[in-house]
Amino acid sequence: MRIIEIREKPVSLSDPMSNAAINFQEMTASAVAIVVDAGHKGTFTGYGFSSVGRYAQSGLIAERFAPRLKALEEVEGADGGLDPVRGWAAMMANEKPGGDGDRAGAVGVLDMALWDVAAKIEGTPLWRILSERYNEDRHHDLVPVYATGGHYYPDGDLEALREEIRGYTDQGYERIKIKCGQGDLADDCSRIEAALSVLDGDGSRLAVDVNCMCSTSGDTQEMADAYSPYGLSWIEEPGHPHDFELLKALTDYYEGAIATGENLFSMSETYNLLIYGGLRGDRDLIQVDPALSYGMVEYANIVKLSEAGEWPRSQMVPHAGHLLAYHAVAGLSLGAHEIAARPDFILGGLQEDVRVADGHATLSQTPGVGFESHPKLWKVLQTL
Amino acid sequence: MRIIEIREKPVSLSDPMSNAAINFQEMTASAVAIVVDAGHKGTFTGYGFSSVGRYAQSGLIAERFAPRLKALEEVEGADGGLDPVRGWAAMMANEKPGGDGDRAGAVGVLDMALWDVAAKIEGTPLWRILSERYNEDRHHDLVPVYATGGHYYPDGDLEALREEIRGYTDQGYERIKIKCGQGDLADDCSRIEAALSVLDGDGSRLAVDVNCMCSTSGDTQEMADAYSPYGLSWIEEPGHPHDFELLKALTDYYEGAIATGENLFSMSETYNLLIYGGLRGDRDLIQVDPALSYGMVEYANIVKLSEAGEWPRSQMVPHAGHLLAYHAVAGLSLGAHEIAARPDFILGGLQEDVRVADGHATLSQTPGVGFESHPKLWKVLQTL
Repeated sequence: MRIIEIREKPVSLSDPMSNAAINFQEMTASAVAIVVDAGHKGTFTGYGFSSVGRYAQSGLIAERFAPRLKALEEVEGADGGLDPVRGWAAMMANEKPGGDGDRAGAVGVLDMALWDVAAKIEGTPLWRILSERYNEDRHHDLVPVYATGGHYYPDGDLEALREEIRGYTDQGYERIKIKCGQGDLADDCSRIEAALSVLDGDGSRLAVDVNCMCSTSGDTQEMADAYSPYGLSWIEEPGHPHDFELLKALTDYYEGAIATGENLFSMSETYNLLIYGGLRGDRDLIQVDPALSYGMVEYANIVKLSEAGEWPRSQMVPHAGHLLAYHAVAGLSLGAHEIAARPDFILGGLQEDVRVADGHATLSQTPGVGFESHPKLWKVLQTL
Repeated sequence: MRIIEIREKPVSLSDPMSNAAINFQEMTASAVAIVVDAGHKGTFTGYGFSSVGRYAQSGLIAERFAPRLKALEEVEGADGGLDPVRGWAAMMANEKPGGDGDRAGAVGVLDMALWDVAAKIEGTPLWRILSERYNEDRHHDLVPVYATGGHYYPDGDLEALREEIRGYTDQGYERIKIKCGQGDLADDCSRIEAALSVLDGDGSRLAVDVNCMCSTSGDTQEMADAYSPYGLSWIEEPGHPHDFELLKALTDYYEGAIATGENLFSMSETYNLLIYGGLRGDRDLIQVDPALSYGMVEYANIVKLSEAGEWPRSQMVPHAGHLLAYHAVAGLSLGAHEIAARPDFILGGLQEDVRVADGHATLSQTPGVGFESHPKLWKVLQTL
């Protein structure tokens, strides 16, 4: 069993939205296809589509990771299926430790395509493969989900925010996440109150992503004081992703839940978050993104690492809402799947055979990741 | 003053050498040229050549960083010269925090070329610009240097190692660094003893780079026990670069100096090394590589950060031995400059107007970085 072709192209995610850290006008993602000759089983094509926020990785894929994968003589595992771990090890050969940035996304999107092929060869949805391999056959029967939105738009006002959130609750979402942190705290509170007005005033249904707005523990205290009265579901990404001191100061001060990890990209970075960040295993959430963190091979180890500490699988809530994260949440019994619920966003939504109701999504039965049953992604991927 | 052209090409650093972590058969580096229209002062070309170990960054440069630099309307600073900080800020726009890996090298090599142009416009060597800007006009009159070599070669034996080191002492080097960690500790000790036989048995003249061979604190204790009798100048890169717990266990146990940081690529990563790693300001060395860490703009901040803690400039010893590091050590009065002293290695040696004697190098007077007076690098760079 071997890889006979790898294709990649960058895709614009251009969008007028912004968050407190960057705007997304120039944002891109990599779409990849890997064709595998599986002998008498036939020829299969696996796809990957990278996550949002860290750009396409065309160069790194062409220069280092696709050639190493293609040079691999054999990708069959001991059980006769395709073993993504073999591909992963080939990609990471001659990479020095540390420096988990762009390459983690380049490897991640190729790893995603390997898992897609592996599941297609088995004729089964990916969540089932992950469940068997990494979760003792357990999985969610209904996948907990939440809707993310409430970005800042150039012409955005509070009524538009309310309208957006009303749209999500109409679609069956119970919990919603919005962006804050681009204005001052008074502005944040207006946004929070606008959102809560659509959510029956129930703070446990609202999460707030502040995209690294705090840079001192004083900032975090002011933020915590301002947000505390709302009893939010969580506050996300309070400060610089490496600033574990700041995070610890916040978790020491604030009773509510904190979510972070989307800007850490490896097991070793996650380990330091866990030992230095002061996160509390009974409430705080770890949002490492499998697609940006060397893919499912590394992510499965991150889940095991967290579990070996005091962070049960319920506290793992992967970033970004792509289909790989959906399968990870479903197959590894993780906390919740984020869904970019805006209808115009290419990464938004789920496979066509999935239904969302009462804050949960049904299990997709499409073989592989299910890109073929996600019209917006498939429109791009079929051109590869 | 604006940038009118940016060119890049990947260059093979192919070399039969290896260390305990990776081999270098496929290793590449980026060579870049930036052409600047400096108005009535004329047109100047600055060059950059990236460091070793992290590959060329052709893709990231072409996709993100060169276009942002070229789109910049103005690179003139308040003093009428070219201000690399303006270029740096443009390159880092819309980059999320964290993920300091490949992009840190892509930005670093472009930043290097910006500093080369800036110094050429002033008609002065780069170390002087750095001295004025970041070191209150102080600088080294003679730059402390050490030779690095003693890699593992397929046909290497101890006599070859002795011969190599003899060559370095003949060239005027006092301190030498060799690789260990690829075999067992007995093999390491044989290598150390072979090296010491050429260095009058003086351990303070020998450093040992183990390229992350330790993965538990038990490993570090065994290593420390084996190496302690030699009184080495330092032990370099004992474990995974993010494993601050392991580093702290080692510094708690071992009296001698430890050097690390070459696989950390930003100010925030360095900060965590300093607060969690247990490094001792009176002996341990910080080896962050400016070319791989977003260039001199970020590195100057890293030096300030360290100095604001308990790590004086004498403890900063940049990785890799490229010409940017030479200027940083000279102009910022840092601890020592590493020189890859093998005559066949493209990054080896210094500018032609520099002399090495008694473990020190003279100051280059070539304007800019001085690539034009480094024949091996210039042979490549002039083809851009």
